[in-house]
Amino acid sequence: MSAPYPRVALIGLGLIASSMAHAMRAGGLCDEIVGHAKSAETRAIARDLFCDRVCETAAEAVQGADLVVLAVPVGAMAAIAAEIAPHLKPGCTVTDVGSVKGAVVQAVGPHIPADVHFIPGHPMAGTEYSGPRSGFATLFQNRWWLLTPLDGTEPAALARLEGLLKAMGAQVDAMDVAHHDLVVAVVSHAPHLIAYTMVGVADHMRRVSQSEIIKYSAAGFRDFTRIAASDPTMWRDVFLTNKEAVLDILGRFTEELFMLQRQIRMGDGDALHAYFTRTRAIRRGIIEAGQDTAAPDFGRGAKPAGD
Amino acid sequence: MSAPYPRVALIGLGLIASSMAHAMRAGGLCDEIVGHAKSAETRAIARDLFCDRVCETAAEAVQGADLVVLAVPVGAMAAIAAEIAPHLKPGCTVTDVGSVKGAVVQAVGPHIPADVHFIPGHPMAGTEYSGPRSGFATLFQNRWWLLTPLDGTEPAALARLEGLLKAMGAQVDAMDVAHHDLVVAVVSHAPHLIAYTMVGVADHMRRVSQSEIIKYSAAGFRDFTRIAASDPTMWRDVFLTNKEAVLDILGRFTEELFMLQRQIRMGDGDALHAYFTRTRAIRRGIIEAGQDTAAPDFGRGAKPAGD
Repeated sequence: MSAPYPRVALIGLGLIASSMAHAMRAGGLCDEIVGHAKSAETRAIARDLFCDRVCETAAEAVQGADLVVLAVPVGAMAAIAAEIAPHLKPGCTVTDVGSVKGAVVQAVGPHIPADVHFIPGHPMAGTEYSGPRSGFATLFQNRWWLLTPLDGTEPAALARLEGLLKAMGAQVDAMDVAHHDLVVAVVSHAPHLIAYTMVGVADHMRRVSQSEIIKYSAAGFRDFTRIAASDPTMWRDVFLTNKEAVLDILGRFTEELFMLQRQIRMGDGDALHAYFTRTRAIRRGIIEAGQDTAAPDFGRGAKPAGD
Repeated sequence: MSAPYPRVALIGLGLIASSMAHAMRAGGLCDEIVGHAKSAETRAIARDLFCDRVCETAAEAVQGADLVVLAVPVGAMAAIAAEIAPHLKPGCTVTDVGSVKGAVVQAVGPHIPADVHFIPGHPMAGTEYSGPRSGFATLFQNRWWLLTPLDGTEPAALARLEGLLKAMGAQVDAMDVAHHDLVVAVVSHAPHLIAYTMVGVADHMRRVSQSEIIKYSAAGFRDFTRIAASDPTMWRDVFLTNKEAVLDILGRFTEELFMLQRQIRMGDGDALHAYFTRTRAIRRGIIEAGQDTAAPDFGRGAKPAGD
């Protein structure tokens, strides 16, 4: 295929941007990759590893670019958008990779000129690692990349961006901005906060030693610590910028938890059994959907401490 | 080694008992395995697969046994203990495999004759599967088997049981009954209830379709569904019989969650960032303790739905 976007500008050069660069190079998906990052050290690493050119300012980096990817923390998007707006090439496409979309649309949208296509996006891919050295070409393989096109987005511009994302190995879905933020609040944001919370509770338990928690973690707790190991800065921004949806889900969660707590207190075994039986169905659905394997896993892969 | 217990009686013939039988046979750890289960079908399967003899009653099964293993749901322990007590061989050892120890000690202890060693136990091993066909000899390899010896337990009797468990591949720790129930409430019981709850909330979300939840589950939710896929009957009994410790931990959890919810609502990013940074330390400890690998895992192993 011919390059969907001859020149691509990456603003922010962390895990996602560096992985995009490696994937575009591996697939010959563009002619030139221009990058910008605040830190001179990051720019130097990016020049060595995956950028054809790096610029000291975002304004410079976007000049003449056919695609501009905003890959900075959600909290930094507004300032970047204001800076690059006057320098965007007419007809180019601007997208982002933030985990929250409503806040990004509010922060970036007002700055985008009428003759530029703004298509917010969210690659549901990542690892516990970050920075310009952490990227790799296959990060997006078989992962979902959600797009939240705004009213009046040109179908041709949307199809062009989808083409690039699919060429990088991603599967693309499009949905409404508010719906996106609710969906990720359910499948990702609320579970992360809950995992952080449970790990925090364990950390505070004076009567249970940290070494005991670590030794016996395979009993279920370990899966929480895996979720709670993610980047604190990214997650702080996620919770602050998807506040409403997250608080909505957490409200439902605590109501539900209180109901189950009460059933435990009252000894209502039938209600608990019925509830636990229902939740099994979703798990079966996920296995059938190929999102996980049916192989029994109660931490059996892991070796215990000691000996 | 010579068999620590020449004749072993297994009362209840599910995943744990059948795995013990396979492990004892594989290691030549006893001369005869006698089994009992309520269901005639289960007894027939056990006779075919791993028992030398099965009996229609628990009373019969324990006669002349050097070790009696109670592997029935915690809720069924009291009746079994009352039934077998008059038939226990003087000097034999009785243990159990319940996930909760305080309730088992209360239910079984009073029935045990003075000349019998009662040593409660909890193998921290299992899979999502259950029943007499689900057992396998390596289930206990490198897994923890917690014992909660009571005051006055003979060191020789304890060492003998530890010998068998270690010969089956388990690592053995001994702790106080109440402490055990608190530790498992933190590392296992509370995390399971929380996972069940979050999966239940997702199940009730009308505005987010079940198919969306399943498609995008790799974003974090999937780990909750894995935990929430466990046996409903076993978990109902766990929560009802470890009620105090579980409600204690859940109380701490909701306090902690409300604090974080409030910080999100108030936009206190510094507090959230500091909290998320602390929780990372436990994760690092678990990786260093060999309870999990450092390999990045954000569901990358799984394939998405569709295509």
